[in-house]
Amino acid sequence: MKYVAKIEVSLKPGHSNPEGETTARLLIELGYNVEAVDVSKVYTVHLDAESFDDAKAKAEEMSKRLLANPTKDDYSISVVEQ
Amino acid sequence: MKYVAKIEVSLKPGHSNPEGETTARLLIELGYNVEAVDVSKVYTVHLDAESFDDAKAKAEEMSKRLLANPTKDDYSISVVEQ
Repeated sequence: MKYVAKIEVSLKPGHSNPEGETTARLLIELGYNVEAVDVSKVYTVHLDAESFDDAKAKAEEMSKRLLANPTKDDYSISVVEQ
Repeated sequence: MKYVAKIEVSLKPGHSNPEGETTARLLIELGYNVEAVDVSKVYTVHLDAESFDDAKAKAEEMSKRLLANPTKDDYSISVVEQ
Protein backbone atom coordinates (compact mmCIF):
# COMPACT_ATOMS: atom_id res chain seq x y z
CA MET A 1 0.00 0.00 0.00
CA LYS A 2 1.02 3.56 -0.60
CA TYR A 3 1.88 5.94 2.21
CA VAL A 4 3.19 9.46 2.56
CA ALA A 5 5.69 10.09 5.37
CA LYS A 6 6.45 13.68 6.34
CA ILE A 7 9.80 13.81 8.11
CA GLU A 8 10.71 17.18 9.63
CA VAL A 9 14.41 17.59 10.42
CA SER A 10 15.40 20.50 12.67
CA LEU A 11 18.52 21.53 14.56
CA LYS A 12 18.81 20.40 18.18
CA PRO A 13 18.52 23.29 20.64
CA GLY A 14 21.81 25.03 21.29
CA HIS A 15 23.30 24.31 17.88
CA SER A 16 24.44 27.16 15.72
CA ASN A 17 21.69 28.20 13.29
CA PRO A 18 23.25 30.62 10.77
CA GLU A 19 20.40 30.43 8.25
CA GLY A 20 17.82 31.27 10.90
CA GLU A 21 19.94 34.09 12.29
CA THR A 22 20.43 35.62 8.84
CA THR A 23 16.71 35.32 8.08
CA ALA A 24 15.82 36.97 11.40
CA ARG A 25 18.25 39.82 10.73
CA LEU A 26 16.84 40.41 7.23
CA LEU A 27 13.26 40.42 8.53
CA ILE A 28 14.24 42.94 11.23
CA GLU A 29 15.91 45.11 8.56
CA LEU A 30 12.63 44.96 6.61
CA GLY A 31 10.89 46.41 9.67
CA TYR A 32 9.34 43.33 11.31
CA ASN A 33 9.34 42.81 15.05
CA VAL A 34 10.99 39.39 14.97
CA GLU A 35 12.75 37.70 17.92
CA ALA A 36 14.15 34.57 16.32
CA VAL A 37 13.74 32.28 13.32
CA ASP A 38 14.32 28.52 13.26
CA VAL A 39 14.72 26.78 9.93
CA SER A 40 13.90 23.13 9.39
CA LYS A 41 13.54 20.85 6.41
CA VAL A 42 10.60 18.61 5.55
CA TYR A 43 11.06 15.49 3.44
CA THR A 44 7.74 14.27 2.03
CA VAL A 45 8.48 10.66 1.13
CA HIS A 46 6.05 8.69 -1.06
CA LEU A 47 6.67 5.04 -0.25
CA ASP A 48 5.22 1.54 -0.52
CA ALA A 49 4.85 -0.39 2.70
CA GLU A 50 2.90 -3.39 4.01
CA SER A 51 1.05 -1.52 6.73
CA PHE A 52 0.85 1.81 8.53
CA ASP A 53 3.24 0.51 11.23
CA ASP A 54 5.67 -0.73 8.58
CA ALA A 55 5.60 2.67 6.84
CA LYS A 56 6.28 4.42 10.15
CA ALA A 57 9.16 2.05 11.00
CA LYS A 58 10.67 2.59 7.55
CA ALA A 59 10.42 6.39 7.86
CA GLU A 60 12.14 6.13 11.26
CA GLU A 61 14.94 4.06 9.70
CA MET A 62 15.32 6.49 6.76
CA SER A 63 15.65 9.38 9.20
CA LYS A 64 18.36 7.60 11.17
CA ARG A 65 20.29 6.27 8.18
CA LEU A 66 20.12 9.24 5.79
CA LEU A 67 17.95 12.25 6.50
CA ALA A 68 18.94 13.38 10.01
CA ASN A 69 22.39 13.76 11.51
CA PRO A 70 22.13 12.28 15.03
CA THR A 71 24.78 14.64 16.37
CA LYS A 72 22.96 17.85 15.52
CA ASP A 73 19.44 17.09 14.30
CA ASP A 74 16.08 16.25 15.84
CA TYR A 75 13.34 14.78 13.67
CA SER A 76 9.62 14.14 13.84
CA ILE A 77 7.57 11.85 11.61
CA SER A 78 3.94 11.79 10.55
CA VAL A 79 2.55 9.15 8.20
CA VAL A 80 -0.72 9.08 6.26
CA GLU A 81 -2.13 6.40 3.98
CA GLN A 82 -2.62 7.63 0.46
CA MET B 1 1.65 39.81 22.00
CA LYS B 2 3.94 37.00 21.01
CA TYR B 3 3.12 34.64 18.18
CA VAL B 4 4.82 31.81 16.35
CA ALA B 5 4.28 31.64 12.59
CA LYS B 6 5.24 28.44 10.78
CA ILE B 7 5.79 29.19 7.10
CA GLU B 8 6.33 26.15 4.87
CA VAL B 9 7.90 26.95 1.50
CA SER B 10 7.78 24.24 -1.17
CA LEU B 11 8.42 24.06 -4.89
CA LYS B 12 5.45 24.58 -7.20
CA PRO B 13 4.45 21.40 -9.03
CA GLY B 14 6.36 20.86 -12.25
CA HIS B 15 9.51 22.62 -11.09
CA SER B 16 12.80 20.78 -11.08
CA ASN B 17 13.49 19.26 -7.66
CA PRO B 18 17.12 18.04 -7.68
CA GLU B 19 17.40 17.63 -3.90
CA GLY B 20 14.26 15.50 -3.74
CA GLU B 21 15.39 13.40 -6.71
CA THR B 22 18.80 12.78 -5.17
CA THR B 23 17.23 11.87 -1.82
CA ALA B 24 14.81 9.45 -3.54
CA ARG B 25 17.67 7.81 -5.44
CA LEU B 26 19.75 7.38 -2.27
CA LEU B 27 16.78 5.88 -0.38
CA ILE B 28 16.18 3.45 -3.25
CA GLU B 29 19.87 2.50 -3.20
CA LEU B 30 19.52 1.81 0.55
CA GLY B 31 16.74 -0.68 -0.33
CA TYR B 32 13.58 1.34 0.34
CA ASN B 33 10.54 1.17 -1.94
CA VAL B 34 10.30 4.91 -2.55
CA GLU B 35 8.45 6.58 -5.42
CA ALA B 36 9.32 10.23 -4.94
CA VAL B 37 10.55 12.71 -2.37
CA ASP B 38 9.57 16.39 -2.11
CA VAL B 39 11.70 18.71 -0.02
CA SER B 40 10.36 21.86 1.57
CA LYS B 41 11.62 24.33 4.13
CA VAL B 42 9.87 25.51 7.27
CA TYR B 43 10.61 28.91 8.80
CA THR B 44 9.43 29.09 12.41
CA VAL B 45 9.24 32.83 13.05
CA HIS B 46 8.86 34.15 16.61
CA LEU B 47 7.31 37.59 16.28
CA ASP B 48 5.49 40.32 18.14
CA ALA B 49 2.13 41.44 16.72
CA GLU B 50 -0.97 43.27 17.88
CA SER B 51 -3.40 40.42 17.24
CA PHE B 52 -3.68 37.00 15.68
CA ASP B 53 -4.88 38.56 12.39
CA ASP B 54 -1.97 41.01 12.45
CA ALA B 55 0.51 38.17 13.01
CA LYS B 56 -1.00 36.23 10.10
CA ALA B 57 -0.89 39.28 7.81
CA LYS B 58 2.74 39.91 8.74
CA ALA B 59 3.70 36.29 8.08
CA GLU B 60 1.97 36.54 4.69
CA GLU B 61 3.97 39.70 3.90
CA MET B 62 7.26 38.12 5.05
CA SER B 63 6.62 35.16 2.75
CA LYS B 64 5.98 37.41 -0.22
CA ARG B 65 8.85 39.81 0.44
CA LEU B 66 11.60 37.44 1.55
CA LEU B 67 10.93 33.79 2.22
CA ALA B 68 9.23 32.49 -0.94
CA ASN B 69 10.12 33.10 -4.55
CA PRO B 70 6.78 33.76 -6.32
CA THR B 71 8.05 32.29 -9.58
CA LYS B 72 8.84 28.84 -8.24
CA ASP B 73 7.55 28.51 -4.67
CA ASP B 74 4.26 27.82 -2.94
CA TYR B 75 3.87 28.59 0.75
CA SER B 76 1.47 27.85 3.58
CA ILE B 77 1.22 29.61 6.92
CA SER B 78 0.01 28.56 10.35
CA VAL B 79 0.09 30.90 13.34
CA VAL B 80 -0.26 30.14 17.05
CA GLU B 81 -0.27 32.49 20.02
CA GLN B 82 2.58 31.81 22.39
